[in-house]
This record gives sequence, C-alpha cells and structure tokens, in this order.
Amino acid sequence: MSLLVVGSIALDSVETPFGSTADALGGSAVFFSYAAALLHPVEVVGVVGSDYPMDALRRLARRGVDISGVEQAEGESFRWRGKYSYDLQSRETLETRLGVFAQFQPRLPAGYGDARYVFLGNIDPELQLGVLDQVEAPRLVACDTMNYWIHGKRDVLLELLGRIDVLMVNDSEARELSGDWNVYRAARWILERGPSSVVIKQGVYGAVLVNDESIFYVPAFPLEEVFDPTGAGDAFAGGFMAHLARSDDLTPDNLRRAMVYGSAMGSFAVERFSIHRFDEIGPAEVTARVRSFGDLVRCDIEATVHVPELSA
Amino acid sequence: MSLLVVGSIALDSVETPFGSTADALGGSAVFFSYAAALLHPVEVVGVVGSDYPMDALRRLARRGVDISGVEQAEGESFRWRGKYSYDLQSRETLETRLGVFAQFQPRLPAGYGDARYVFLGNIDPELQLGVLDQVEAPRLVACDTMNYWIHGKRDVLLELLGRIDVLMVNDSEARELSGDWNVYRAARWILERGPSSVVIKQGVYGAVLVNDESIFYVPAFPLEEVFDPTGAGDAFAGGFMAHLARSDDLTPDNLRRAMVYGSAMGSFAVERFSIHRFDEIGPAEVTARVRSFGDLVRCDIEATVHVPELSA
Repeated sequence: MSLLVVGSIALDSVETPFGSTADALGGSAVFFSYAAALLHPVEVVGVVGSDYPMDALRRLARRGVDISGVEQAEGESFRWRGKYSYDLQSRETLETRLGVFAQFQPRLPAGYGDARYVFLGNIDPELQLGVLDQVEAPRLVACDTMNYWIHGKRDVLLELLGRIDVLMVNDSEARELSGDWNVYRAARWILERGPSSVVIKQGVYGAVLVNDESIFYVPAFPLEEVFDPTGAGDAFAGGFMAHLARSDDLTPDNLRRAMVYGSAMGSFAVERFSIHRFDEIGPAEVTARVRSFGDLVRCDIEATVHVPELSA
Repeated sequence: MSLLVVGSIALDSVETPFGSTADALGGSAVFFSYAAALLHPVEVVGVVGSDYPMDALRRLARRGVDISGVEQAEGESFRWRGKYSYDLQSRETLETRLGVFAQFQPRLPAGYGDARYVFLGNIDPELQLGVLDQVEAPRLVACDTMNYWIHGKRDVLLELLGRIDVLMVNDSEARELSGDWNVYRAARWILERGPSSVVIKQGVYGAVLVNDESIFYVPAFPLEEVFDPTGAGDAFAGGFMAHLARSDDLTPDNLRRAMVYGSAMGSFAVERFSIHRFDEIGPAEVTARVRSFGDLVRCDIEATVHVPELSA
C-alpha cells in the first residue's frame, strides 16, 4: 500500500561528545525515508534550497523512494545546528535557519492523493492539515509534533488530532499537550481527542503504544555505542509506518509488530551520524534486529504462577 | 530457602504533589520485607530507636517476617525527610537524622548465619562486608548502594563487588561507579569486578538485567496514579529476592521471572504512601499483576519475519 511522508529535508550540523558533522543529511522526511525504504517504497513531499546536494536525493531514489514530490526552491536549504550533552540525553539547539522551508506549502504531485498510509512529520500543523486536505482516503494517518506547535498553534493542533489515527510524541510533548504529568493519563487525554492510538517515544528507554485495546511497551535496543540521537524518532516512525503499509494490517497484534520495527529503525539511526547507518544495512540486518527484541523481553511467568507452592 | 535482609528501618516524612506523610514506616529493610513477605518468609536485621512504634514491627512479624534480628537501641530512630518534584521524577533530601543508625553494627542472631539468600540494603559498604563475614554459605547475595558510598568508600565498595552476585543500582549510580555514561558498558564494567548479574533500575521506565547470558528488560507497570516513589527500589529487591529464595532456582529464565516480580512489587510500593499498599494486597493481586506484564510486551514478530514478502 502506498506510503507518503511529508516533512523537513534539512542539513544538520551536530556536535556530540564523539565528534561533529556539518551540513549532513537530516530532517524528518529524510530519516523517515531512509528507514522506511528498507521495508517498503516511499513517496516523499518536501522542499530543498538551491544549495542542496541533489545527489543525496538521487541516492534516496535508488533506494525506492519516489522524490518527485520534492520541490527545489530558490534560496537556502533548511539548516539545524545542535549540540548534545555528554550522555546524549539532552540537546541544545544552537541555530535554526528555515531558509526555503519558511515559505513551504506542501503540494502533492498527481497520483499521491490516493496515498493509503500517511506520515506527517513535525512541521506547522496548518501545513499538516493542508496535506490531509489533498489526500482522498487514507487508511492510517500518523503525525508528529513538538512543543513549539503545542504552545504556538494549539487550536490548529487540536483540530488536527480529530483527523489523524496515530499521534507520535515524546514524554514531554505528551505532558505539555495534555497538561498532565502522567504519560498514561496524558495518552488517554489525547485518545479522547481523535487518534485511535498514541505512541509515546522515550528515547533510550523505548516507546509505549497506548490505545483502547491495551498498552504495549517496546524497549530501546540496548546499544553500547551511540553516536548521534538526531533523527531517531523519525526513523522510528519510518519503521512503524512502513511495516503497516507493506502488511496493510491494522490489527492490534500488527500495531505491536510495527512498534518493534520502529524501535529497531530508531536504534540503527543513532549508531552513526546522520543517515549513514542506513547506508550500511539491508534486510538481513533489519530482520536480525527485530528478532532480537523477542529475547530482550522473553519471560515465561506462567511457569511460575501455575506452580501451586509458587503461585503467591 | 532462607532469605535475609539487612538495611535501614526508618521513619520517613515525605512531601509529594498529592500530600505528605510524617514519621511513616520506611527504610530499605522495611520496604524489602513488606514486599518479600508476600512471597516468602524473611529474616530482617536492623536497628530502631527507643521512639520507634514497635507495633509496626509486630505487624511485620504477623506477615511472616522474623524480627528477632531487629535491635532496639537507646536514642532516636533513623529519620529521612524528602520532597518530590511535581512529576515525581526527582527528589530533594530535606533532612537526614541517623540517630541510632550512626552506631549500627549488624549482628546476626544465632541461626541467621546459614541464610542462603541475602540482600544487603543501601548502608555503609563496610557494614555490608561485615554482614557477609557472618553468613556461612550464601547461594546468592544481592546488594544495593548509592552515590554517597560510591564517592566516599569506593575501595570498600570495590572489595564488596568481588563478594556479591547481583548489584542492584539505578542509572546514575551505575554511571558514577563505572565512570561510563552508557549504562550497558557500565554494567559490563561492574560484571568484570565480581557480580554475575547487574540490575539497573530505571524508575518509571522499568529495569534491566544484564549478565553474560543476555540482557532482559522489564517495563515498569503502567500506573495512572502514583503517590510516592519512596521505597520502590527496595520493594523491587524484595520481589526479586523472594522469588529466587522460594524457587531456589538461579537459571537465566528464573532470574527473568524474578525481575518481573521485582517490577510488580515496585509498582505496588508507589501506589500509596509508605508501605500502605502492601497492607491491602495478597497473593491474588500479586499473581494478577505479574501476569499482566506478559501482555505488556507480547509481540509475535516471527509471524512477520517468516512471511517471505514481509521478511525485510
């Protein structure tokens, strides 16, 4: 089933304790596409400036990503510069230059309007709504956002919640949106406003899927080497959405599997700067990693609770 | 198999956004014992002052806890006063009054020396070593510590590591002990110094068991109401150790089950102030909660990776 992503295409300059990178490939649509393309074809809508390394887009195209929705506009590409703390748990934005992104109005090419799976990367919720107006009958729409929009465009964001199926946010975004410090109550608050599922991303601690059926917890893959957390959330979304699009199965069990693909893709993203890890891996690495999640949480508790003298 | 705990017996005054409590039952040995006693008999060694409400100890005794190792000394009981942040994620110690705990020298009563399962609560590592000298042939020794001892008595703590089987610490303690910000590398560092397993407690995010066999992740039970995080780690230890003691089974699979009992007990601890939640529950509630952990992480990923067209 067709999978569409709309989001930023950026050039990132990132400092971590392990090195730095300048004008590297970044942006929500790029991380999403690199991860998703390992599982399923992707259609991407975004904008780049006249200074963007167009060869990078051609590399994406060779991976099965349809880049006909990427517009090249006169001006500078979107740039983000940030610095991570020693433990990679927090980051500081040093500079954001919107460039051509400031005037971005997503226009879907002919043929994209029938997209069945849609991911709205973290952009202005008015633009996210504008994208939905151009999609005829999506089967599942997932959406990311950030505190900037939660505070600055709350009403639009609430309208958007009524039109999407899955909201993917981190702990602090869920708390700020709902005004509730407890993430499970925050998730219920969000579910009451439209989405049928909420995915709460918790970085090195994993992610939680909350819906009316159940709560599902997927850990982060345990990594002894993490280089750059940038893009992990978008790579998570790429794995999540691509698994749903290729299987076209929205049963609760398959949503759980999508979470595991998401966590696996998020773990690849952080192993190198920028999208470089995705240049090194293929289907075999993805399958091996998603399988390893089973052992990470495997526990036969019934073997204990069924033994009378141990059934405390 | 006999289960021994040595630790603090305190009177806690706690402020949370939801209320406060004064001189409530607390201390590592008390939280441990309340949780463990739901699964298995416990022998407790500690000290209380002349002002301690001895009826509280008698209540413990009625739950199957042998309190003959609790010494009552002339003076004031150990008191801790703390205040939690609005989201319960951080806390400030407002006051610590050691009282009779300052002179505490754990002495095991006759008959305790043959304890097979031993938990050394967070006290001076010299005292923890002193306890081990009094135990003849323990099958498994687990130990907690804190940053105060990591900095102040590092050499003694390293000596202790060579004599224990399981170190149970939180993220920041593991990092400070090893000098490594990555918790998995920190765990390896600890394993190289003696313990065969490390349990890293991560609060609302759950806990990880790291040993040479594997890494096992248990989430925290998802709670929409949390009142007081005090004692969660000690209740975790109580569930973990009591399950091992009652089953006397140290296979990798049973260590995983012990983690689930630990997380379940930790989740009960935070649902009320002090140890009050443990006064409300029995075996049925414990069994129901440990069972619910299965659904929280249930995912049949093989159903996907075995399908050729989905085996990305």
